[in-house]
Amino acid sequence: MLDESRSPGRGRFITLEGGEGVGKSTNLGFVCEFLARRGVEVVRTREPGGTPRAEAIRRLLLDPAEEEPLSDDAELLLIFAARAQHLERLVRPALARGAWVVCDRFTDATFAYQGGGRGIDNDAIATLETLVQRGLQPDLTLLLDMPVEAAQRRVSERGNERDRFEQERADFFTAVRNVYLRRASSQPERFAIIDAAQSLEDVQQAIEACLQDWWGGMT
Amino acid sequence: MLDESRSPGRGRFITLEGGEGVGKSTNLGFVCEFLARRGVEVVRTREPGGTPRAEAIRRLLLDPAEEEPLSDDAELLLIFAARAQHLERLVRPALARGAWVVCDRFTDATFAYQGGGRGIDNDAIATLETLVQRGLQPDLTLLLDMPVEAAQRRVSERGNERDRFEQERADFFTAVRNVYLRRASSQPERFAIIDAAQSLEDVQQAIEACLQDWWGGMT
Ligand SMILES: Nc1ncnc2c1ncn2[C@@H]1O[C@H](COP(=O)(O)OP(=O)(O)O)[C@@H](O)[C@H]1O
Ligand SMILES: Nc1ncnc2c1ncn2[C@@H]1O[C@H](COP(=O)(O)OP(=O)(O)O)[C@@H](O)[C@H]1O
Ligand SMILES: [Mg+2]
Ligand SMILES: [Mg+2]
Repeated sequence: MLDESRSPGRGRFITLEGGEGVGKSTNLGFVCEFLARRGVEVVRTREPGGTPRAEAIRRLLLDPAEEEPLSDDAELLLIFAARAQHLERLVRPALARGAWVVCDRFTDATFAYQGGGRGIDNDAIATLETLVQRGLQPDLTLLLDMPVEAAQRRVSERGNERDRFEQERADFFTAVRNVYLRRASSQPERFAIIDAAQSLEDVQQAIEACLQDWWGGMT
Repeated sequence: MLDESRSPGRGRFITLEGGEGVGKSTNLGFVCEFLARRGVEVVRTREPGGTPRAEAIRRLLLDPAEEEPLSDDAELLLIFAARAQHLERLVRPALARGAWVVCDRFTDATFAYQGGGRGIDNDAIATLETLVQRGLQPDLTLLLDMPVEAAQRRVSERGNERDRFEQERADFFTAVRNVYLRRASSQPERFAIIDAAQSLEDVQQAIEACLQDWWGGMT
């Protein structure tokens, strides 16, 4: 699979990661524009979701319905169900035709939220990762990192109603942040850590520098 | 886990299995009444589904939306997501308080439909089974068995719109039937095979005889 994923005609797979409010959605378009200016076809997407059926699964996942809490196992399996659908219908076909896929969250988020946040066993997550991804991994992951409290203030100011995840407490998000940082330091060739506490201008300057560097190494 | 599942104060878990149209839903109430007459609390349920959130997952699974076929992996993971939710919220609490749970389909159906019908690797299904069930297995499984063609005629006569599974072809259901029969013959202590091609009266006589026999061994 690694051979296939590195073959010359294939697109690249870039993911944006980080806790709530760090600026993933805000900067997704910026990453896409950087790539589009270099003449590649860009597919912008997100997880959970990215296709109509996967977005329907996303709605089940985010629904705060308090009468019936969603079990941790069901949450994990729904996330990978959405991922399987997204990979088969959108991501793999796009990469195969040479498009570059830029995705708001991917499996690092599952290790961070369901592993770190909910305390689900890492082996269970890794088993599902293998089952669904069959070796497919992002080529580059931009981890937007910042202190949890400041990110939470941004979520409050964004002002939307909070979904099931956004309702979690600070210690949940501290665990999420720690897993992200641990994964980034154990896979430095895939991850770039961006200081997301800076002004948007500075964040985008950092993202641009990182993409430029990486683009140079790719082409 | 086997010890826990056999502990004296615990209820028993009975499942009805078989392809489309063999009479599972028709005979579920009959099984429940047999048990209720013996003074146990009975919980009647079904899979995929059985709780509001799991029923929402069921709707995604059965939706024939043809614009976007559901991938085999996503189907499998949605089924186990619904199962995880159903087990945590309904089945395990019921068994723990001493109720008997009678369920229209369970994991044998996953091996039959997703394994036999769709051709998904048995190991993947078994991995998810272990992850979600943690040793919980039905105490008794009534397999309603009959030739595929005659069962398909019953489905046609039932006359509802066909869901994603009911739209499958005869060779799919032949594979389903074969897996069911293979599982029943490899686990004879758990399975009872009922000849479902008989008149409803004869089917129920066979179910009653089997339950009586089994009840005698239990109590
Ligand atoms: N660098 C930044 N400085 C200040 N506010 C920001 C910055 N980046 C994003 N925001 C704001 O913070 C909020 C959360 O950003 P968003 O992109 O939705 O985060 P995420 O998708 O990671 O949850 C939004 O209201 C956004 O406008
Ligand atoms: N023994 C039987 N003989 C004839 N028709 C039956 C018998 N059992 C069930 N049916 C009818 O066959 C159809 C399918 O039964 P159903 O219980 O819905 O099957 P399943 O739930 O296994 O798909 C229904 O219309 C039902 O009334
Ligand atoms: Mg976002
Ligand atoms: Mg039925």
